[in-house]
Amino acid sequence: MLIVMRHGASEQQINNVVEVIKKKGRDAHVSTGDVHTVIGAVGAKPVDPRDFELLDGVKEVLKISSSYKLVSRIFKPEDTIIDVKGEKFGGGNIGLIAGPCTIESEEQIEAAASKLASYGVKIIRGGAFKPRTSPYSFQGLGEEGLKIIRKVADKYNLAVTSEVMEISQIPMFLKYVDILQVGARNMQNFNLLKELSHINKPVMIKRGLSATIEEWLMAAEYILSGGNMEVILCERGIRTFERATRNTLDLCSIPVVKKVSHLPIIIDPSHGTGLRDKVVPMSLASVAAGCDGLMIEVHDNPDCALCDGAQSLYPEQYKDLMEKLAKIAPVVDKKMNY
Amino acid sequence: MLIVMRHGASEQQINNVVEVIKKKGRDAHVSTGDVHTVIGAVGAKPVDPRDFELLDGVKEVLKISSSYKLVSRIFKPEDTIIDVKGEKFGGGNIGLIAGPCTIESEEQIEAAASKLASYGVKIIRGGAFKPRTSPYSFQGLGEEGLKIIRKVADKYNLAVTSEVMEISQIPMFLKYVDILQVGARNMQNFNLLKELSHINKPVMIKRGLSATIEEWLMAAEYILSGGNMEVILCERGIRTFERATRNTLDLCSIPVVKKVSHLPIIIDPSHGTGLRDKVVPMSLASVAAGCDGLMIEVHDNPDCALCDGAQSLYPEQYKDLMEKLAKIAPVVDKKMNY
Amino acid sequence: MLIVMRHGASEQQINNVVEVIKKKGRDAHVSTGDVHTVIGAVGAKPVDPRDFELLDGVKEVLKISSSYKLVSRIFKPEDTIIDVKGEKFGGGNIGLIAGPCTIESEEQIEAAASKLASYGVKIIRGGAFKPRTSPYSFQGLGEEGLKIIRKVADKYNLAVTSEVMEISQIPMFLKYVDILQVGARNMQNFNLLKELSHINKPVMIKRGLSATIEEWLMAAEYILSGGNMEVILCERGIRTFERATRNTLDLCSIPVVKKVSHLPIIIDPSHGTGLRDKVVPMSLASVAAGCDGLMIEVHDNPDCALCDGAQSLYPEQYKDLMEKLAKIAPVVDKKMNY
Amino acid sequence: MLIVMRHGASEQQINNVVEVIKKKGRDAHVSTGDVHTVIGAVGAKPVDPRDFELLDGVKEVLKISSSYKLVSRIFKPEDTIIDVKGEKFGGGNIGLIAGPCTIESEEQIEAAASKLASYGVKIIRGGAFKPRTSPYSFQGLGEEGLKIIRKVADKYNLAVTSEVMEISQIPMFLKYVDILQVGARNMQNFNLLKELSHINKPVMIKRGLSATIEEWLMAAEYILSGGNMEVILCERGIRTFERATRNTLDLCSIPVVKKVSHLPIIIDPSHGTGLRDKVVPMSLASVAAGCDGLMIEVHDNPDCALCDGAQSLYPEQYKDLMEKLAKIAPVVDKKMNY
Repeated sequence: MLIVMRHGASEQQINNVVEVIKKKGRDAHVSTGDVHTVIGAVGAKPVDPRDFELLDGVKEVLKISSSYKLVSRIFKPEDTIIDVKGEKFGGGNIGLIAGPCTIESEEQIEAAASKLASYGVKIIRGGAFKPRTSPYSFQGLGEEGLKIIRKVADKYNLAVTSEVMEISQIPMFLKYVDILQVGARNMQNFNLLKELSHINKPVMIKRGLSATIEEWLMAAEYILSGGNMEVILCERGIRTFERATRNTLDLCSIPVVKKVSHLPIIIDPSHGTGLRDKVVPMSLASVAAGCDGLMIEVHDNPDCALCDGAQSLYPEQYKDLMEKLAKIAPVVDKKMNY
Repeated sequence: MLIVMRHGASEQQINNVVEVIKKKGRDAHVSTGDVHTVIGAVGAKPVDPRDFELLDGVKEVLKISSSYKLVSRIFKPEDTIIDVKGEKFGGGNIGLIAGPCTIESEEQIEAAASKLASYGVKIIRGGAFKPRTSPYSFQGLGEEGLKIIRKVADKYNLAVTSEVMEISQIPMFLKYVDILQVGARNMQNFNLLKELSHINKPVMIKRGLSATIEEWLMAAEYILSGGNMEVILCERGIRTFERATRNTLDLCSIPVVKKVSHLPIIIDPSHGTGLRDKVVPMSLASVAAGCDGLMIEVHDNPDCALCDGAQSLYPEQYKDLMEKLAKIAPVVDKKMNY
Repeated sequence: MLIVMRHGASEQQINNVVEVIKKKGRDAHVSTGDVHTVIGAVGAKPVDPRDFELLDGVKEVLKISSSYKLVSRIFKPEDTIIDVKGEKFGGGNIGLIAGPCTIESEEQIEAAASKLASYGVKIIRGGAFKPRTSPYSFQGLGEEGLKIIRKVADKYNLAVTSEVMEISQIPMFLKYVDILQVGARNMQNFNLLKELSHINKPVMIKRGLSATIEEWLMAAEYILSGGNMEVILCERGIRTFERATRNTLDLCSIPVVKKVSHLPIIIDPSHGTGLRDKVVPMSLASVAAGCDGLMIEVHDNPDCALCDGAQSLYPEQYKDLMEKLAKIAPVVDKKMNY
Repeated sequence: MLIVMRHGASEQQINNVVEVIKKKGRDAHVSTGDVHTVIGAVGAKPVDPRDFELLDGVKEVLKISSSYKLVSRIFKPEDTIIDVKGEKFGGGNIGLIAGPCTIESEEQIEAAASKLASYGVKIIRGGAFKPRTSPYSFQGLGEEGLKIIRKVADKYNLAVTSEVMEISQIPMFLKYVDILQVGARNMQNFNLLKELSHINKPVMIKRGLSATIEEWLMAAEYILSGGNMEVILCERGIRTFERATRNTLDLCSIPVVKKVSHLPIIIDPSHGTGLRDKVVPMSLASVAAGCDGLMIEVHDNPDCALCDGAQSLYPEQYKDLMEKLAKIAPVVDKKMNY
């Protein structure tokens, strides 16, 4: 942290800042410039920049960003590669996940899985717990849903990913699921993150609707800091003033994350746009921008989906999309299973 | 829901929309205008507007907002008044809550409580569980903290409010706490909301950082829909592009909420601004704007606070503030205990 | 500007940064810490922080904010007071401006002015040029409108404020108007600002819809830097994700601006909320928060206004509001004419 | 516009709304539903939805969006193709524009143009008027700059695009420039737009930092409504809470605009990201998402650029990028000159 003193700050004001820094358990390093004196507060002890903003003579306090360590490329320069049933995320590999928003019935999952498997999909998605904005909407099949998707997945030799909502559900999810998702609303549920840091299955963290990239990486840090190094970051759109789309998909998060972190970053264009006819162009754009994977909602019969049918692709659309993606991937030096 | 057809939409396109509406379990009501045909989808069955946006000939789909019912003034025209130890929120009363961000020790709570009680404060706040953005920061005293604040509060005949983080903690909180807070990050933790709908203590719901007022009211609806009618809404700032303050305190949410809902709305200027010298003007502004209460961070020794000291008032500042508030309240026809 | 090097940055990388700083015409000041080496780029020559972000070994670049000088309290510690016909803004005075959104006819202005004058209003507002979002809407009376408002204002001994849209209109405005307004959309029309820096009448700058407070102060700096020291800042709401109100009125900009600048800051609650029933509470809140003035839309017959009738107060509402404001002002040590 | 009445609204309230609609010059069309009565306000006369929100018994007012007509695909279903010196935008063509942010000298433009022309670039960009956030920064060469870029462009048979700042500059720009740019800050400078609606050269409108897509299309409508049908839309990022990049590039605006409008949409990844190493991935993503063109900053010596060097590509980077784009374009059925 750097404390910039006002032009003309008195020696006494400078000394006071130094003293407060020391009282907070850090070392102070004063550097006198022509215009501003800058005081560094050196050390590992966490301090609140605002405590210094309020001191006399202080112009502003500059935070040296990102307390994250383990997610950083400085800690681990080479890409983390996460391998789930041979589907790889990171290190030049584009991993693909597809499936319906919600598990509705065995018939529905069977219909989706059989087609997706025939297109080479290796990981199926499907929600079992769907807490909804309105208390009056369909809320998911719960554990019954997880059983269904596991059973069907096994039949087609697929891995499964699904969203875990709270700590108490973790043991249940470990039984049925290969990648545990943390939803956007839970991105800063730090107790949940801490528990997930002790499991030995990959965790996918969705970016919160109003989370900065730095906060998102900090959330991932929680998981790595407990020993679980298998984290996939998933961008799914942020909230802005624009309402033409459900959210604003921040595709520039791809090169930003790839530069500072070794973790794979994938895109969820289904939630990121909210409308089927936007999913295809945004998927193509994501791969061109260098993402490490995609998670796409596909429903055998989107018009009758119980949830988010409007953002689900028809299976044939998914197949067409894959054909295009397979042509774009090599242009940006990526491999994908198709 | 109203579906507006494009100018020149064909009869077949209109009929198709009508059919889809019926398939989704609603009635269709076609109204032919000069320019646009508008089709109403009438009924209680939840439908997704996006399913219609994708149909041929549809120009746009207009949602008749707010599926909330119980929080609405249409359901209950007169103000809900929540009374905790004689401190009232709503119905012309301004309820006050004060105390430190975090429970650090019995001495600290004792120091704060004795002063606050002497100023007439009836409800003390203090956090026991403090999951922080960084896994490397102080995380709260847990149940020990709740015991401390309860003990001290009883000594001074105060009520207690503290934030509950997850379902499993509810029984513990019911033992020690009089108002259970739901934090901004948990505003859409619907499972937690559902559980809180069955308790018989008041719940305070903070507005999420990126939550619209409508979504916030929907979250309150979850609690009322389970039978718990005692909900206090708490505005604490939203995230915008402006970074001069920690968040942007949306004071206009006060008249917006007061118009549509009977629930009391209070303001947390401490988190809403993040800096002590902004807390006083924003508190004055909140009361002038018609809020039903305030929750303010006060610390006996903010410079040594373990958390958020920079946004905590000194006890004397709080007293000065109360004196000013007591003069503003009657101007807007409100009563407060001071 | 401070350049923070990565942990473990090589001497060569540090030397390279120093060299680039010198090539850009600034002095470099290296300060070696335990973890990070921090290099200050000292001097007045403008440099682009991004040029350094891209250099090898650089962790991040911290800008010492605000190149503004003349608007700062460091340059001028005491409040600037702007006096227009005896109505004062700043220095403990709350200046008031009222009138219709748009000049529609002499009858309309006469009706508004006669009532407002009888309430003690000293400055009337009214738009003559109204470029609208849609090319198909009413666009204002132009110079004819300015003549009308000047004539009526003279009859009641009022000052006039109106929005100037472009450089070529300045001479015309100087003939008719006492305070020249710069609209939110023109806040960064720097050519216009430069011209207004040479006139000798006060200028009111509205905050842009997506302007940070720092950018807004920079816009004011443009005017002061040309010699015109009479600038009034006017907050009128920023664009956020919330749509319940037209804009989000950022009342915390009041204490933020008052701390760093000597310029008066006023609030426009009419554009800031967009709805009449929100104007009254937000006006009360603004004064309680410490603003130096208000500009409020009042129309003799809002239901028939050609523009923004929904956000215009009825004259009697304005009078009631003033009575309340006159009670709140002394609580926060302010004077107003009522 | 549709006015939704509250559940249980009285006949008198409904009649009053109908009356107000008629007074405002529109026809009313009442449609009685089970829960809500919906009243359509039919006709072309502009009305303000807020006038109805304030009436008794009204629940909410739904605006049928977009008063734009000429920019809509309903008015003109097939793509508009804009052809400048054989470089085409729209209708399956990707048009390319490259060049430095600012015209600094003839040598600089010569160096850029000779290389770009050798890569097949047909349109060069360069700013002559650069009003900057700070009054203390370099402000561009003005007309001298336009003369330079025209002269060099003619030598290499290139077309020129540059930003026009205000009405009085239009005749000057018509002498030197082939495509007139309207900057983001001028997107709602309606007087400027009106003047540009009468010229017979293409106009490129950049999206405002806080402009919705609908407002942006409305700005284009201004130009078409005056008779100039040659408009190129240019996305360059919107302002959000995220600060890791200068702006948030909204690539989903591509499919949104392509669906509703026939106008070509191009992307400016240089301003949209602000950093050179983000420009390449975002350019690739833009083409994959279906854009009709790109405008990219390229500088012969970015490290010495007077403005925005950090976001300018080296010429060789541009060439590499083109090679990749040429492989992606056919995947999405687009042609480009390379």
